[in-house]
Amino acid sequence: MTSKDELLAAIAWAASKGWTPATGGNFSARVPEGYLVTASGRDKTRIQADDLLLCDLDGQVLEGSGKPSAESDLHAALYRLDGQIGCVLHTHTVASTVLSRRFPDGIALNGFEMQKALQGNTTHDATVCLPVVPNAQDMDELAAHVRAAWPMPWGFLVAGHGIYAVGATVAECRRHLEAIEFLLACVLEESRWSQ
Amino acid sequence: MTSKDELLAAIAWAASKGWTPATGGNFSARVPEGYLVTASGRDKTRIQADDLLLCDLDGQVLEGSGKPSAESDLHAALYRLDGQIGCVLHTHTVASTVLSRRFPDGIALNGFEMQKALQGNTTHDATVCLPVVPNAQDMDELAAHVRAAWPMPWGFLVAGHGIYAVGATVAECRRHLEAIEFLLACVLEESRWSQ
Amino acid sequence: MTSKDELLAAIAWAASKGWTPATGGNFSARVPEGYLVTASGRDKTRIQADDLLLCDLDGQVLEGSGKPSAESDLHAALYRLDGQIGCVLHTHTVASTVLSRRFPDGIALNGFEMQKALQGNTTHDATVCLPVVPNAQDMDELAAHVRAAWPMPWGFLVAGHGIYAVGATVAECRRHLEAIEFLLACVLEESRWSQ
Amino acid sequence: MTSKDELLAAIAWAASKGWTPATGGNFSARVPEGYLVTASGRDKTRIQADDLLLCDLDGQVLEGSGKPSAESDLHAALYRLDGQIGCVLHTHTVASTVLSRRFPDGIALNGFEMQKALQGNTTHDATVCLPVVPNAQDMDELAAHVRAAWPMPWGFLVAGHGIYAVGATVAECRRHLEAIEFLLACVLEESRWSQ
Repeated sequence: MTSKDELLAAIAWAASKGWTPATGGNFSARVPEGYLVTASGRDKTRIQADDLLLCDLDGQVLEGSGKPSAESDLHAALYRLDGQIGCVLHTHTVASTVLSRRFPDGIALNGFEMQKALQGNTTHDATVCLPVVPNAQDMDELAAHVRAAWPMPWGFLVAGHGIYAVGATVAECRRHLEAIEFLLACVLEESRWSQ
Repeated sequence: MTSKDELLAAIAWAASKGWTPATGGNFSARVPEGYLVTASGRDKTRIQADDLLLCDLDGQVLEGSGKPSAESDLHAALYRLDGQIGCVLHTHTVASTVLSRRFPDGIALNGFEMQKALQGNTTHDATVCLPVVPNAQDMDELAAHVRAAWPMPWGFLVAGHGIYAVGATVAECRRHLEAIEFLLACVLEESRWSQ
Repeated sequence: MTSKDELLAAIAWAASKGWTPATGGNFSARVPEGYLVTASGRDKTRIQADDLLLCDLDGQVLEGSGKPSAESDLHAALYRLDGQIGCVLHTHTVASTVLSRRFPDGIALNGFEMQKALQGNTTHDATVCLPVVPNAQDMDELAAHVRAAWPMPWGFLVAGHGIYAVGATVAECRRHLEAIEFLLACVLEESRWSQ
Repeated sequence: MTSKDELLAAIAWAASKGWTPATGGNFSARVPEGYLVTASGRDKTRIQADDLLLCDLDGQVLEGSGKPSAESDLHAALYRLDGQIGCVLHTHTVASTVLSRRFPDGIALNGFEMQKALQGNTTHDATVCLPVVPNAQDMDELAAHVRAAWPMPWGFLVAGHGIYAVGATVAECRRHLEAIEFLLACVLEESRWSQ
């Protein structure tokens, strides 16, 4: 599969999970010319090749019709920030929205086998942190929040907003996204016990 | 797609989400002659073109067989009330049922990125309200509750009953419905922490 | 559709909802000779015509291979008890299991629009009760519990076990089942607030 | 169906339930030469015959390309430990992850009809225990935990990790897995009331 096909499959998968409500979420993969990214406002449950735009690393559209997502500039900033990033998947989910509001300084995890799905972790017996950055409508401001907190090798949450997963490949990024969502579901369940 | 096809696709989508249990919910779109609306008691998971009736703006059936939904008169009242409304989607969901009972004066939202999916909102950093009107079996009484609370540009909840989403187009109305349901899911999670 | 086809469709639907875990649940419809009922231990997600047995009203198998479900005798008892019953759908769900354990004397409902989906109810503004009977492995004992609590026009919960929905037709029984499950989901959410 | 086909169907089913997030989980069935087991890191939602490896009972690969799952050695240990075991299904689920952390000494169950789906149980009116063993990254250590707690005729939970269901056949193992997951969902709901 080409990067484009892999990206389209990842978008269709995320949409099928219910992680792109109300045309939300945006998705990209690095290519030689820059990156491919979803156009604004498309229904991700019916994604097609012409819903993707080709942009350079400054976020300028090189090919494709439609406006890039408002958050395309954050994708561009991530690809400029870290040459290891090959894919960025951004979803809107209930667990990430509410937990990032409750824990604006990040979510500490310890003792979950699923931590091993996050790149660089080989045991459950360690503490890792899912970072949270403040939300902003201005993409330069949001990118500044992200740069200030870098490195975040699996991605991060934006408070009250959702998950940005990153990975070297589309496959790794999908694994990170799914692992983060699973871990958040566990934290959400456990948070109910600690009332 | 015609309005009719778009409406049928929206009904099938809402049904696939589980938002029309026990033949519940009703759905309409404005057309030149009045509006198209679901006939009473049909299983929305198997909706077909002949499950739609054509009514005038007084709610009288012009075409189609079957009784219009009991709540068809509320759809008619909405189309008469506001010429901007092109579509009304009404679902029965657990979150809207219980939250509208708990918060009969409306549900205030602040800081959710998803607020931007509600027409007229461009930032998470504002307070918006999902309005709740009291339930009534008499459609004139229910319509009076709605008129008293107008304008409600994304729609409203009926206490113990469900969501009425409105929009200028079927697509906008779907986006409003999905955004409201997502925001309610967030509020429901957060309500468990505040016990 | 024949009763048999309608029953098979209802079983496939209930299974698709996840209401028949671990080959659980059993399902029947009245026919002139007695009733059709699922054979024991079949995977309801892959139900076929030969998974149904024809029994007389004493629960004796007239046609079909396989053992009737252990609870077939309760179905027989229901058909003998009330000539209005044309269908019995029994599911195992989490909400019915835990709420019937918590509220062994029945679950009172008031103010839910969904109450109108239960036969004989025309308003949300009334109190109705979802009855709960004690569980028993002996079908005569379980049938005695049911007879003692009769009439229960939509069906009942068995404590720690699941839902028995009844209806004059397969369609009405499905509507009752889905409405009961929806109402239980609402009660479950609200029960978390009342801690 | 051959054991291989039955195993593949069981994996596809578990994946469709969302029980194998982030390429997690592993699955095996005993065959005359040893056992068939999933190769490491495969996406279980797209499982195919060549994702299975044939291993001997010491866990050595006899046929197939790819690395066996890290936990393949635990499967081997289970088949050596108990000649009755014909299938091992291991999933990662939220309920099993958080409940095994909360109840590291095991989860007692009483009064659930679903207990009857666990081999050897014929009534709800008894107490059974879902055992929990501590997690370990070293498979010899994890196998030692399992041996120390044997017999566990339906399987066990690994703390913060997931479910290992066992059964004489693939069908019995699936029934055990689904029953355990259902019972955990009930316990999770009830745990919220006991805060």
